[in-house]
Amino acid sequence: MNLKDIYVLRLHHRLERDKRVTTHVALVARAFGAKGIFIHGEDMNLLKTIEKVKANWGGKYFSIEFVKNPKKVVREWRSSGGIVVHLTMYGIPIDNIIEKIIEKNTKILVIVGSEKVEGWYYYNSDYNIAIGNQPHSEVAALAIFLDRIYKGGELNIQFSDAKLSIIPQERGKKVRKNE
Amino acid sequence: MNLKDIYVLRLHHRLERDKRVTTHVALVARAFGAKGIFIHGEDMNLLKTIEKVKANWGGKYFSIEFVKNPKKVVREWRSSGGIVVHLTMYGIPIDNIIEKIIEKNTKILVIVGSEKVEGWYYYNSDYNIAIGNQPHSEVAALAIFLDRIYKGGELNIQFSDAKLSIIPQERGKKVRKNE
Repeated sequence: MNLKDIYVLRLHHRLERDKRVTTHVALVARAFGAKGIFIHGEDMNLLKTIEKVKANWGGKYFSIEFVKNPKKVVREWRSSGGIVVHLTMYGIPIDNIIEKIIEKNTKILVIVGSEKVEGWYYYNSDYNIAIGNQPHSEVAALAIFLDRIYKGGELNIQFSDAKLSIIPQERGKKVRKNE
Repeated sequence: MNLKDIYVLRLHHRLERDKRVTTHVALVARAFGAKGIFIHGEDMNLLKTIEKVKANWGGKYFSIEFVKNPKKVVREWRSSGGIVVHLTMYGIPIDNIIEKIIEKNTKILVIVGSEKVEGWYYYNSDYNIAIGNQPHSEVAALAIFLDRIYKGGELNIQFSDAKLSIIPQERGKKVRKNE
């Protein structure tokens, strides 16, 4: 499976409240085939966690960038020809729009917020997309979005630079060390 | 879409570390068509959050039960004829097994852990299932599992007892109050 040019922008990471959830967002981004993540805020523990996952399980290309001005990221993304997708429970159901996005065949910035997202992002994204019009989780929303983009293929991504890989088992754990 | 008899068992909820993540697990469970959640541990703030979501967005049937002995939940589930699915990165890829589970057409307990899950659960589940053999998130794993069970239909669940419903918009937010 070829990775697409997909990056995630995580808005408004509040260190205390969001640290575990943002870590999950970043882990899903890597595991489900995004190439990197911009995080609004700074969190050195998160960085350490993700770098450790990359070192063991592969995906050195996966970039983590802390940003102070997420609107600038959005503006630059669009002016360089990419599309911006904002995942929100208030948006258009994903099933109505996903084929159109895939057909555009261009790089995608996926915005996931935490509780409150400024109106600006609704008006400066190309698409406001709902993964179900119910309150749930930006982690789940990102996972389903990437799953629809890759049509399930993301679950079989091989990280060629992995030191460790899992050999699937019916019971217990089996991990191979790659030399 | 008819809801299936699916419940989630969240293992080892550690109040400080996991509070937001377990809340996301519970929100995904409700939004993606599970009927309830058992949580190993206790967290009154989480309960308040989910009850508020149910009151506004519907799904009063969705049950939240704090349990001290999660192994007992597993044993009783199996002895009453249900199957137990443990989501783990070490398991069998979901694509290899999902049709078999759907065909069984019986109630399902879905176990999601936090960092370390005791070996007991690997040996006392009917299926250990991987949502990709990579480290990511139990929130994402649960979402994809339910998505595969419901074949995407979970994104259109209507909660008939909702006080609020969203009218999907290309920009901004529109919420209807149901009388």
